[in-house]
Amino acid sequence: MGEAIRGSLIVGQSGGPSPVINASALGVIRTALASKSITKVYGANYGIDGVIGDRLLIMDEAGVTELDKFLFTPASALGSCRTKMPDPEVDETPYRAILNVFKKHDVRYFCYIGGNDSMDTCNKISKYMKAVGYECRIMGVPKTIDNDLFGTDHCPGYGSAAKYIATSIMEVACDAAVYNKGAVTIFECMGRHAGWLTAAAALSNVNGHYLDLIYLPETDFDMDRFIEDIRVCFEKNGNCNVAVSEGIHYADGSFISESGTSSTDGFGHVQLGGLASYLAAEVRDRLGYKTRGIEFSLLQRCAAHCSSGRDVSEAYMAGNAAVENMLQGVTDRMVGFECARYPFGGYDSHIILLPLEKAANYERTFPKEWINEEGNYVTDSFIEYALPLIQGESPTRYLKGLPDFTSYNKVFC
Amino acid sequence: MGEAIRGSLIVGQSGGPSPVINASALGVIRTALASKSITKVYGANYGIDGVIGDRLLIMDEAGVTELDKFLFTPASALGSCRTKMPDPEVDETPYRAILNVFKKHDVRYFCYIGGNDSMDTCNKISKYMKAVGYECRIMGVPKTIDNDLFGTDHCPGYGSAAKYIATSIMEVACDAAVYNKGAVTIFECMGRHAGWLTAAAALSNVNGHYLDLIYLPETDFDMDRFIEDIRVCFEKNGNCNVAVSEGIHYADGSFISESGTSSTDGFGHVQLGGLASYLAAEVRDRLGYKTRGIEFSLLQRCAAHCSSGRDVSEAYMAGNAAVENMLQGVTDRMVGFECARYPFGGYDSHIILLPLEKAANYERTFPKEWINEEGNYVTDSFIEYALPLIQGESPTRYLKGLPDFTSYNKVFC
Repeated sequence: MGEAIRGSLIVGQSGGPSPVINASALGVIRTALASKSITKVYGANYGIDGVIGDRLLIMDEAGVTELDKFLFTPASALGSCRTKMPDPEVDETPYRAILNVFKKHDVRYFCYIGGNDSMDTCNKISKYMKAVGYECRIMGVPKTIDNDLFGTDHCPGYGSAAKYIATSIMEVACDAAVYNKGAVTIFECMGRHAGWLTAAAALSNVNGHYLDLIYLPETDFDMDRFIEDIRVCFEKNGNCNVAVSEGIHYADGSFISESGTSSTDGFGHVQLGGLASYLAAEVRDRLGYKTRGIEFSLLQRCAAHCSSGRDVSEAYMAGNAAVENMLQGVTDRMVGFECARYPFGGYDSHIILLPLEKAANYERTFPKEWINEEGNYVTDSFIEYALPLIQGESPTRYLKGLPDFTSYNKVFC
Repeated sequence: MGEAIRGSLIVGQSGGPSPVINASALGVIRTALASKSITKVYGANYGIDGVIGDRLLIMDEAGVTELDKFLFTPASALGSCRTKMPDPEVDETPYRAILNVFKKHDVRYFCYIGGNDSMDTCNKISKYMKAVGYECRIMGVPKTIDNDLFGTDHCPGYGSAAKYIATSIMEVACDAAVYNKGAVTIFECMGRHAGWLTAAAALSNVNGHYLDLIYLPETDFDMDRFIEDIRVCFEKNGNCNVAVSEGIHYADGSFISESGTSSTDGFGHVQLGGLASYLAAEVRDRLGYKTRGIEFSLLQRCAAHCSSGRDVSEAYMAGNAAVENMLQGVTDRMVGFECARYPFGGYDSHIILLPLEKAANYERTFPKEWINEEGNYVTDSFIEYALPLIQGESPTRYLKGLPDFTSYNKVFC
């Protein structure tokens, strides 16, 4: 193991927010503040853009009480971005800017919390710094509700979004069952390319029966079969609850959300209707049932009040491990989890370190063998996988009956 | 006070569900089961339709553990209906059916949990029973997330829906603020005629600043002013969060949700687009900002995991009080609440009894003086009114990381 070098640390958040990305940031910040080797702790305001533009928040000044609220505050408290870094051989400009900022503030530790693109950013910066001979340690911390990062058992953020989706489906299913005349309710979940989040809808059946059908983007969608599946279910149960991924597509690759509903507003502009309401209308038209489309929209990625306690802890642990490892000389790695699952819900997870390159360039797809033969539900193997990830309740602190989210002191350096 | 008469009790649930209507049913059922005068406790399956059709659930057989879960299970566990009772002078049929069922099962107590229409049902049945000389006691228990029942400070169900709306707006507002480039987010809340629920969006500003503008159905909507309000806010803050009631309408009374977006599906059927996405598109077109429409849809009326602890308690209390009062000879009343509010959040509520007739025929409108002069926000008086109603967290019991909703034993008699 290497030794700790003296210098400051920058932590940044990137990509779409999650209910626990701030918990990871807190893990980084607290560990860094406690280290004697790390002289200053900075937060990059709006991700890598904040580094490039030298907009750094002094985290020492955030205030302990407000900083602690990062544990249960959703979204990216430091600010996020969707910047994709260019190939340094094509455009060196942003890298030169980062190098200057690193030099100016004596930055020797850089920790970036995000998905594939963020790991790619880490990887490129790391290579550049090596090429120019600037000594620093760089670590990625995984974050994505989509759960599609390669090499790790799961990603912080996924368990909380999964818990929100399963809980909300249970609740709406109760609501949809109150009248003598049944209804078809269609839930639209995020996950354009990977079915992880939509599959989580199956967790709603752990304590009873609330959901009937699931359609993932890993299977080609067939409208006639979809309608027939619903008809059979409705005839049998007098009710039907269906989860669909926003990314479901026909065999030719075209998204269902892009077909059909084009609405025209007052100005004649065409706007895409929501997938859930499109499918609901389709079912209503073809089968004559009462239908409802529910889109979980942004709610599923920011409902911190319904986050998984275990997810929050692991998110924090991931941030903590990133710094601990950098202090011991590790660099160019993404923190990940290796987990063991035992009968009756037993679960054990520990931190592993993965090459940035792999996390940057590979996606973790939903296992085909976890989809049933009919392509309209998931197998028990998925439940065994996902159930441990949604255990424990949110650590949300309430003030006057409402979450007491952070309003930390933003001091720029 | 009269004396308790011996006989059985029927409890029914009616109208749209709420997160706490089962807590009220539990209050009724537990109190009735504990009474020596009440010989049997029945649940009307699907509201008054279940009485008319003699589909009665034996609540003694529900199982104590599963019955107790009514406290945190959303929607109507007994089943609901939207049946409007005819004038008995025009059509006596359903009343004769009810009388026969009452006689058959020796029903002397009837408790109906619902909104205006349910109070009207109670009132009509009560008058009919008096006219035919059948001795029984009838009591209404208020329930509506819309909060528009006359004579009571507030309705059970409102506090929980209000808490869900405020919490979710806070969370989405965190999400909407993560990028350097701001956005306009439009939240659509329920409440076709009354602004109570949409006004609750203002509670999101109690622990910080999360919401900018509110449009209620009590004010005529002006699209140009709406756009200008957003422009001014966005220019100032670089961001704008707006809550609108589904019932906002132009000065001529036409709903905004009915104008503009008519989408045509693959079969050429016209379907109404959501109001939130329509307004979001309008803002995008006129101002060029990034926009999002969020519809809370059914989620706002069934999110029991986010219900108000006080609301749950009061809902239970209301059911309890209905039975206690009937046992003491009271009849033809709706249970209501009278509340006192003190500085620093102090609050006190007690049960009052209101004539059914008034609750049936009058609506409680949102006070005009609680809307600001510009018609785009609410005053502090509303916050003082509503804040006590969202205090305390949900009593949801979790099993395997998910709510453990009731699956009580349904035994018909």
